[in-house]
Amino acid sequence: MNFSSKLLENAVNEFSRLPGIGQKSALRLVLHLLNQSEQDVNRFSEAMSELKTKIKYCSECYNIADNQICEICASHKRDKSIICVVEDTRDVMAIENTNQFQGVYHVLGGLISPMDGVGPTDLRIEQLLERLRKGEVEEIILALSATMEGDTTIFYLYKKIKDFNLKISTIARGIAFGGELEYVDEVTLGRSIVTRIPYERNIA
Amino acid sequence: MNFSSKLLENAVNEFSRLPGIGQKSALRLVLHLLNQSEQDVNRFSEAMSELKTKIKYCSECYNIADNQICEICASHKRDKSIICVVEDTRDVMAIENTNQFQGVYHVLGGLISPMDGVGPTDLRIEQLLERLRKGEVEEIILALSATMEGDTTIFYLYKKIKDFNLKISTIARGIAFGGELEYVDEVTLGRSIVTRIPYERNIA
Repeated sequence: MNFSSKLLENAVNEFSRLPGIGQKSALRLVLHLLNQSEQDVNRFSEAMSELKTKIKYCSECYNIADNQICEICASHKRDKSIICVVEDTRDVMAIENTNQFQGVYHVLGGLISPMDGVGPTDLRIEQLLERLRKGEVEEIILALSATMEGDTTIFYLYKKIKDFNLKISTIARGIAFGGELEYVDEVTLGRSIVTRIPYERNIA
Repeated sequence: MNFSSKLLENAVNEFSRLPGIGQKSALRLVLHLLNQSEQDVNRFSEAMSELKTKIKYCSECYNIADNQICEICASHKRDKSIICVVEDTRDVMAIENTNQFQGVYHVLGGLISPMDGVGPTDLRIEQLLERLRKGEVEEIILALSATMEGDTTIFYLYKKIKDFNLKISTIARGIAFGGELEYVDEVTLGRSIVTRIPYERNIA
C-alpha cells in the first residue's frame, strides 16, 4: 500500500499485526480512530498500555484478575477440593457462563504444542502440582480443547497427576445438543457410541 | 460477558467500539496483546496516540500527510489544473495504485448523508470552492462512490461548481472488467447501455 503518511503507515502496521486483521481492515480501523476525538483515542491507547502494565494474575489459579486473589478463588461459596484445569481465561468465562461448576480453576496459559514451540515448562503445570501437594484437592477436571494440542496436554497432565490419589476426569465429548446425527463427523459419532452413558444419568 | 478483571473489561470494551469488531473478537485481540511483550504493547498504544496528536492534513488537498503539504501536491510532476474529488484517503490510495491519474486530489472527508447527520458544512466543500476561485483549475473529476450518499454529494457539488467554467466529469460506471453479463444487476446493465461509448475510445 502507498501511504501518504509515515504515522498512518505505522499505525496500520501495528494493527495488522493482530491476528485475523489484514492491511485493509487495519486501515479501516485506523481511519475510524482518526475520526474520533483525541480524548477517545487516548482512552483507547491508555486502556491497552494499562492492561499490560497493571494486570495481575491470581496467585492461586493464575486467572486474569485485578487483585492478588481472583474473585472465584476468594469466594467462600466455591468448592476448593475440585479444580477445573483450562487453557486460558476465555475458557473460565465460558464455563462460568454455564453456571454448572462450583469448584475453582487452574489456568495453564496455553497448550503443549511442539509446532508452536510451546513445551510443558511454558505452561503453569508445576504450579498445579504445587496446589495438589497441599493435599486439599480431591478431584481434577481436565477441560481442554478436543484438539491434538489439547489431547497431548491432557495425556502429559494425566501422567503427572495420576499418583496423587485424585478423581481425574475429562469433560464429555459427543454430539452437541441440537446436533443432527447425519452431519456429525465419524470420529465423534464413533466415540459417542463407545462412551455411551446410562439413560438415567443423561436425564439427571 | 463475565470478566474477571476491570482492566480486561475496559480494554475489550475499547476494542469492541471499533467498526466490525464484536465482544468475542475484541477479547481475542486483547488476549493476544496481553501475550506480547510490554514493549510491543507500548509501541501499539503509542502508534495510536501519536497518530491522533501528530497527524497533519495537507493544506491544499486535505489528504493525510506528515508535512504541511502532501507529497502529491508538492510534486512538480502533477498537473495542478485537474482536481479529482474523493471521499477519503483510502480513495486517494486506490486511485494512486492505478497509475492512471496525474492530477491532484481534494479529500472531502466524507459524503453527504442526512441519515448519519452529515451535511455539506461537515465536508471540505468550501475549501474546494476556495481552490477553484484561484482560477488555475480547468477540470474536476468527481470520483465518489456509486451509492445514494455519493450521488447526493455529486449533485450538490455539481450545483456549486457548475458556474466556474470547468470541465466537470464523474468516473465511468458500468460493468467491471471480468464481469459476466448475466450476473450484472439490472440498473448497472441498463445504464451501461444508455451510456455506451464508441469502440475506438474503449481501446485507446
